[in-house]
Amino acid sequence: MEQEQTNTAKPIRCRAAVSRVAGQPLVMEEVEVAPPRDHEVRIKITCTSICHTDITFWRLEGMHPSIFGHEAVGMVESVGEHVREVAVGDMVVPVFAAQCSECPDCLSTRSNLCSRFPNIPGSMPRDGTTRFSFASTGEPIRHFISVSSFVEYTVVDITHIVKLDASFPQEMACLLSCGVSTGVGAAWKVAEVEPGSSVAVFGLGAVGLAVAQGARMRKRMGITDFINPNDTDGKTVSEVIKELTGGSGADYCFECIGSTSVMAEAFKSSRMGWGKTILIGVVGNMATIGIPSYDILQGRSVMGSLFGGIKPKDDIPMLAQKYLDKELELEEFITHQMGFDEINRAFELLVQGKSLRCIIWMDDAKENGVK
Amino acid sequence: MEQEQTNTAKPIRCRAAVSRVAGQPLVMEEVEVAPPRDHEVRIKITCTSICHTDITFWRLEGMHPSIFGHEAVGMVESVGEHVREVAVGDMVVPVFAAQCSECPDCLSTRSNLCSRFPNIPGSMPRDGTTRFSFASTGEPIRHFISVSSFVEYTVVDITHIVKLDASFPQEMACLLSCGVSTGVGAAWKVAEVEPGSSVAVFGLGAVGLAVAQGARMRKRMGITDFINPNDTDGKTVSEVIKELTGGSGADYCFECIGSTSVMAEAFKSSRMGWGKTILIGVVGNMATIGIPSYDILQGRSVMGSLFGGIKPKDDIPMLAQKYLDKELELEEFITHQMGFDEINRAFELLVQGKSLRCIIWMDDAKENGVK
Repeated sequence: MEQEQTNTAKPIRCRAAVSRVAGQPLVMEEVEVAPPRDHEVRIKITCTSICHTDITFWRLEGMHPSIFGHEAVGMVESVGEHVREVAVGDMVVPVFAAQCSECPDCLSTRSNLCSRFPNIPGSMPRDGTTRFSFASTGEPIRHFISVSSFVEYTVVDITHIVKLDASFPQEMACLLSCGVSTGVGAAWKVAEVEPGSSVAVFGLGAVGLAVAQGARMRKRMGITDFINPNDTDGKTVSEVIKELTGGSGADYCFECIGSTSVMAEAFKSSRMGWGKTILIGVVGNMATIGIPSYDILQGRSVMGSLFGGIKPKDDIPMLAQKYLDKELELEEFITHQMGFDEINRAFELLVQGKSLRCIIWMDDAKENGVK
Repeated sequence: MEQEQTNTAKPIRCRAAVSRVAGQPLVMEEVEVAPPRDHEVRIKITCTSICHTDITFWRLEGMHPSIFGHEAVGMVESVGEHVREVAVGDMVVPVFAAQCSECPDCLSTRSNLCSRFPNIPGSMPRDGTTRFSFASTGEPIRHFISVSSFVEYTVVDITHIVKLDASFPQEMACLLSCGVSTGVGAAWKVAEVEPGSSVAVFGLGAVGLAVAQGARMRKRMGITDFINPNDTDGKTVSEVIKELTGGSGADYCFECIGSTSVMAEAFKSSRMGWGKTILIGVVGNMATIGIPSYDILQGRSVMGSLFGGIKPKDDIPMLAQKYLDKELELEEFITHQMGFDEINRAFELLVQGKSLRCIIWMDDAKENGVK
């Protein structure tokens, strides 16, 4: 018999940046974080960063009150029953995508979307309840895609947790938990970009730049041309891309924004015969992409992926090793660092396109803190 | 120096089933077929069959007068200058898709769409002119996608010709020139269906049944369920397919009709995580397919192909060999055979869904002929 760890964890009161109203600044509040239940882990967040998907959902109605945030790293504070994969004190990355390692999708190399635990936006994946409440009123607060990292302590299901070596730089681990891995994975695992290929990336935020890194890992070439869509002499972006590729279009087109009109333009920019358009950007509403039937029948394809085909527990440790081996650059993605109190400024920087990734350190915040 | 064949061919007067008005019965007319020019071959058609793409274009305005037909087999009657690949008397299959063997697409294994000779619907691919005219008035008649086989003699560019061994059964060669190869190729070359996969085929005409054959060649299993879309107890086809696949959807969905609404339903029927929708059916207008962004981001993809990824000169002889080796069944596709005079009846049978392929023999027609 394996020895069970006894769960003696108590509720923790701590600070969270709560989103109370769609699109309005987050509010620093005292919240209560319940102990982890069976198969769950409570994590003391070290640092977090903001991804455009946080902003997309922050702006949507019907998602509040909520603790957003899904790029983070932290230390295991306590574990629920049946958790054996990690122990108190381990450094872990919580990830919005589950890997149960048992369902047909987890067992297949073709899928990275766990079908046993599909993502439930606002609650814990296993029982649909919440571990967060306002300390003042006891009113429950929604989780966000099984992570919720804009808080000092969070509770995450073990299927959504990746353990990394404690010596790994924490801000780099934070980057690997969503955006950068998504971009690298899209080029490397989804598109399988081949040496010598032409690659067009739509949206040069952190995800788009990570696509370029992933493509470079496979073809040893970096970005050669930039197109500013506001400065094309009246041409469409797809027309400019066709000119740059000798009239044919790009072999691979990546949409990293989450705009159906950009998705359509990316598709138009893809080459007849074998052009692949890879959709990565998450569209907030249920909008439809229009694909001209004549064009797709000319040997083109459109592939969608979440998290760039990355299987969290298998691939994130491997990307971490690539960083240590200097095959993957991560420093370049960190344009800003600040304390937890400044999280609304970090939101503004990303909304205004002035940052790639801003690392938000929870400890720094405590110095000026609410507590 | 290679010896050039001197082109001493003269115009030929013969019978053609001409389409004069969109959607109206073909009219048997005496036409003049000019000699083959450089790189061209004049073929005496042995037999032809009708594909839904003939019907799609026959119904379109702006395509007339035209000699349709693009599934056929025949004997080389004469050749133009610079033709060395075939000689007078060879058995050849004319194909709507070119293979120049020199352009980037022909040199790549990833494309089957020659980029040097993209398909020009109404004329010869190399000089944009026509070899057909009415014998009575001299008025030119349009070609159809580089083949035009509803005529006793046609002229085809050498890049659109595949030579087969003269002992190969001609009606089977005819089937391989478009529809059957498209379906087999889509399953085998485009989708690369894997053993144990679930496959949903939308549209069980000749192309759809050929998809089933292609899938069976890869996974040794045949068709297990039929869904009549008019008999589903009010459920959508995608709902029925999800029920049949344990709730998940099919691994591979093939659209073999050319309807954007069926394309959307095929996509909906595909599995999260790795479901591929393969579009084969040609849509007559420039209609757009609507793909829900949320659904495609769940690891799904949509791939379009013309001619099922088949490279004519490489793959058609190989499919012919598979028939001889009894790995590919062709007999089952031939539901009707008749003479050239009865071509309008063959059109009706296909329009009404009463035939798969009707082999139209040119010689039989001569017995009752116009000449």
